[in-house]
Order: sequence, then structure tokens, then C-alpha cells
Amino acid sequence: MKIAVDAMGGDNGSKVVVTAVKQFLIEFPGVEVVVFGDKNELEQLTSLCQVIDAPETVPMEAGALEVIRMKNSSMCVALKTMKEQQFDAVVSAGSTGGYLAAATLILKLIPGVRRAALVTSFPTKLKDKKLVVLDIGANNENSPEELVQFAEMGRTYHQSLYNSDNPKTYLLSNGTEAHKGSPVGQAAYKLLLETQFPNFCGNMEARDALTGEADILVTDGYTGNVFLKSSEGIAKLMSAMIKDNFKKNLWTKLGYLHVAKGFKEMSTTMNYKTTGGAMLLGVNGVVVKAHGNSDVYGFTNALRVAKTMVERRVVETIKEMVKRGQ
Amino acid sequence: MKIAVDAMGGDNGSKVVVTAVKQFLIEFPGVEVVVFGDKNELEQLTSLCQVIDAPETVPMEAGALEVIRMKNSSMCVALKTMKEQQFDAVVSAGSTGGYLAAATLILKLIPGVRRAALVTSFPTKLKDKKLVVLDIGANNENSPEELVQFAEMGRTYHQSLYNSDNPKTYLLSNGTEAHKGSPVGQAAYKLLLETQFPNFCGNMEARDALTGEADILVTDGYTGNVFLKSSEGIAKLMSAMIKDNFKKNLWTKLGYLHVAKGFKEMSTTMNYKTTGGAMLLGVNGVVVKAHGNSDVYGFTNALRVAKTMVERRVVETIKEMVKRGQ
Repeated sequence: MKIAVDAMGGDNGSKVVVTAVKQFLIEFPGVEVVVFGDKNELEQLTSLCQVIDAPETVPMEAGALEVIRMKNSSMCVALKTMKEQQFDAVVSAGSTGGYLAAATLILKLIPGVRRAALVTSFPTKLKDKKLVVLDIGANNENSPEELVQFAEMGRTYHQSLYNSDNPKTYLLSNGTEAHKGSPVGQAAYKLLLETQFPNFCGNMEARDALTGEADILVTDGYTGNVFLKSSEGIAKLMSAMIKDNFKKNLWTKLGYLHVAKGFKEMSTTMNYKTTGGAMLLGVNGVVVKAHGNSDVYGFTNALRVAKTMVERRVVETIKEMVKRGQ
Repeated sequence: MKIAVDAMGGDNGSKVVVTAVKQFLIEFPGVEVVVFGDKNELEQLTSLCQVIDAPETVPMEAGALEVIRMKNSSMCVALKTMKEQQFDAVVSAGSTGGYLAAATLILKLIPGVRRAALVTSFPTKLKDKKLVVLDIGANNENSPEELVQFAEMGRTYHQSLYNSDNPKTYLLSNGTEAHKGSPVGQAAYKLLLETQFPNFCGNMEARDALTGEADILVTDGYTGNVFLKSSEGIAKLMSAMIKDNFKKNLWTKLGYLHVAKGFKEMSTTMNYKTTGGAMLLGVNGVVVKAHGNSDVYGFTNALRVAKTMVERRVVETIKEMVKRGQ
């Protein structure tokens, strides 16, 4: 297995990536990693893996067009090398918009796929049960037909990743009734019913998304992004409040000692989405986006996600799925 | 001051409303409350305030058309009486869609207002600073011009409620750059810039909404509803996790004793949106929507919100604002 890693472009610079790659290679010595970025900053890695000098860094605020023009950037070189040398996966913490656009342009969509979608798993109230949500931000606008294909890709992804048989698919909506939802959502609802989409269970409100009832939640990229980031915002706010509570005085600090373990576990669970990696589904290859603000834990996790996706043959399974549908 | 109260239609029945009205009248004996609902269920109130028998109950899942047809329902009678007898406000915990539609139809939009918007305040990281968000679900689709008017109404609302001078207004978006956002959001951004909307500060991502930086967050009703309910979902999930942490064993239970007060305060803050009341801005009168699942605390709070909105003359101020703009 060969994974391309873009070491530049994350909020926290290449240092985080260097340590993450080291940790990952200790954990999985059998995986080949090729790191793209400023050679001077990556010296520590040269004895451990291949390092390709590509010092040009895509700025975090770079849009799609800008990135595509930066042909010598670590991000574009990583993607191009991945394609030419048939690597299995690529990981970057750089500009989301730019990365997704460049990945789609360079690796190309799987024939038959209308639009790529960014997918990730959320924690739920039921321990060990995750909710797969897509699209969480690869697109700004989607058609009903695209949402239907997101449902198909999401189902395949869930089945590959969690070995599930018949996962429950819902549409994210502003009410549970059939007539609820944005105009695009309403049309997608009809299509999913008409095509008898397997185990389609209707609309779900955002507040019930994490109860563990749904396995897959389908939405357009704009709304999905708001869902992801609203959740992130509230989780951050509550975490700050929890910290303040424990810091108040000696008694509350003593109180914390008793529950520290539980709260640390909770914090890890809640950070799943920010520290893990999201995958771009629908392109020719495993493309994993690490959170722009990833720390070592987060970037290492993104590398693990890439490895898992390659092992579970997610891309191949989607190719077969699309072929069957045509 | 005269407030109409729809006692039926909430998830928890009229009992909650009876106790809430009692508490409210003890707190504010100067306010006149008229309660609409099944007389038999409201007997306890007859000595305290006027009770109008209107036993027909709007079901929670009733849509706009259905409610409008239920002319004798407690909800419609409350709204019609409010209009005819010029009450100052109306409060209901019934079907959101139905309530908003009936309120708009019966009370009418303020001349010059394109669409009514549901507004509420969220807690932020900065204690005593709230974020005003609209529309959180009165509409399913909005035009750029409607978003601009939501910004105007939101500003007036913020100024009236918090005595603010020049609140900061942001558009909810999937990125901070000017070109980000849904097509409608992008067009609204341009309009707000062109019209030099006072203290318009650009786009804000959902994850930064609760940092305390923004005073007003403007969005279309569909996205705003997803924002509201995603926040609710994560807050619920984290609250459940916190409870589980403290329940683990004797030590964690002892730990809880030290921090109980802080966590109770936090829970109150986080429940603000579910237990408080949201106001429908843009109609002729103070229309407050209590959460469908309101308990006594929540419904009493909704009554307080109605009283405050009347005192702060929010409706009159919006009327003046619209007049000036024409």
C-alpha cells in the first residue's frame, strides 16, 4: 500500500505532519508513505520514507481555481504523483475547496458519478454506532439526482466500512413528514421512494441525527457543512463550559479527579469529526481530507482512515455499484 | 398588557400550560392573560384569568393548510381573538408550521415586510452575550432580498431587546470568504455590501457562530433550522454523555456533588433555545412560539419573552423601520 501525504498547507504547518507520519510508520511499518513538501522541513523523515521536494504551499484561503494554477504546490504534486504512479491514497490538511477541486480534476470522477461528496462519521448516543453523513461540504448546490447518488455511495461506504448488511438511510430535513425539506430535498425524497431505495426511512431532523437510529444521513453539501460546523461549534462551547466548571475552586478541581477519565473519553469522541479524516467519495482513488487545524493525533488518524479505506476497497466497491446501476 | 395563550397542542398537554400561567401571574400580576383551550382541563385557571373554551386541538404534525381549516381550534381562536380585541401578544407550543401560517394569515404581515422570520437568541462563550439568529425555520426557501430584510429586522430586534447601539451582523455561510455561501447567500452578501448595511461584517461559519464575535446571524429558514437543530442534537448528546460520566460509580457520584451547581447552570444555558420562546418577526403583533416539548419552565419562559417583546415595542420599531426604508 502506498499513501501520498501533502505535508504543507495545514494550519499547524509541516511539524505536525512529520510527527504524525513517524507515529503512523511505527504503527504500520508495512505501509509505504511518500511525503510531499519543503525538503528542509521534512529532514527527519528522509530516513523513514520517501520525501519529494515541493516547497510551494497552498494558502488555507485558496479557492479551487487558485490551487489548480499552483501546479508545483505540494498538494498538486502529491495528487499528480499519486495518479501517475498509481498510489492507493492521498491525505492533506490544506484548503478544503482547493483540495477537493484539484483531486477531482487530477484523479477524475469515477465514470457514472455525477458529483463527488465529502463523507465522515459522527458519534451517536449508542456507543460503537456511528452515523455516516454526506455531503458535508464538497458541493455548494446539489440536484435531487445527485442526492440519490450520494445515498447510493453512502450505503456502499457504510457497508464497506462497518460490514453492515442493510443500513438505514435518511434525508436530512427540517421536519419528518414527507412534504418537508428544501425543494431539492423534497424531489430527492420522491426519487428515493420511486426507485425503492433499499431501507430508505424518510426525513430526519438534525436534532435526532445522533440518536443512533439512522446509519446514513444524506444532504446537499451546503446544508451538510452547516450541520457539521454547527455541531462543532456547540461541542466547542460546551467543552469550554465544562472546563470552566471544573476550574472554579479546589472542590471542583477535586471533583474533576473522579471523572477525568470519562470526560477525556468524551472529548475524544466529540472530536472525532475534527480530528479524524473525511473522505471524498466518487473520485478515482482514496482522497482523505484531514481537518485544517489537525494536531498530531488528528493527522495520524487521517492516515489511519486512508489505510482503512484502501483495505476496505471503498473506491472499487463504488465503481462496481455505479456499473451495476448503468 | 394582554396576552393570548393557546393551552392545547404542545407535546405535554394543557397541564404544563396551566402551571406555567399560574407561575407567570404570580410573577407578573399586572399582566392580563386570556387562555384558550378545553375548559374542563383549564378549571384551575378560571379564578385567576379569563378562560375561553376552544377544545379543538391542532395536532403536532398538522401543516399550514390543515390549521387554517381548523377555525375553531384553540390556536386559531386565540389568534383571531387577539386580532379582534387588539391583544398585545400570543403564545403557543403547537405545530410550528401551522402556527406560523395561521399567525401570518390572521394577523397579516407588516406592510412592506416580504416574509416573516422566526428569531431566537443563542448562548455564546461570552457570558451575558447572546447571538440573535434568524430565520430559524419560518421559511423553506428565501430570496436574497428577503435575507436583507431579515438582517434589518434582526438588527432592530437586537437593538430593542439588548439596548445595543451598533450590533455586528453576519451571514451564515460555509466559509468566511466573500465568494462562499449558497447562491442565495452570495447574492444577499452583495446586496448588503451595496446598500452599505450598518456594521455588516461578512460571512461566518457555523462553528464560529457562538464565540461571541457576532451579534446577529442571518440565514434562510431551511439552513437556520438545520443550524438550530444540529446544535440541539449535539447538546443533547453531550448532556447524556456527561450524565453517564457522573453515574459510573460512587467516586464519580461524589465528584458530581462538587460541580453540580455549575453543570445545572450550564444545562439551563444550553436549553435556552428549547426552553425559551422564539418570536415570529414581521407580523402585526407579538407572536411567540414555545418549544413543542416545553415543560413548565420552558412555557413560563415563553410567556416572559412575550412580555419583554411587548415592553420593548419590537413590532412598532419594525413598523417604523420598514416605513423609513420605503
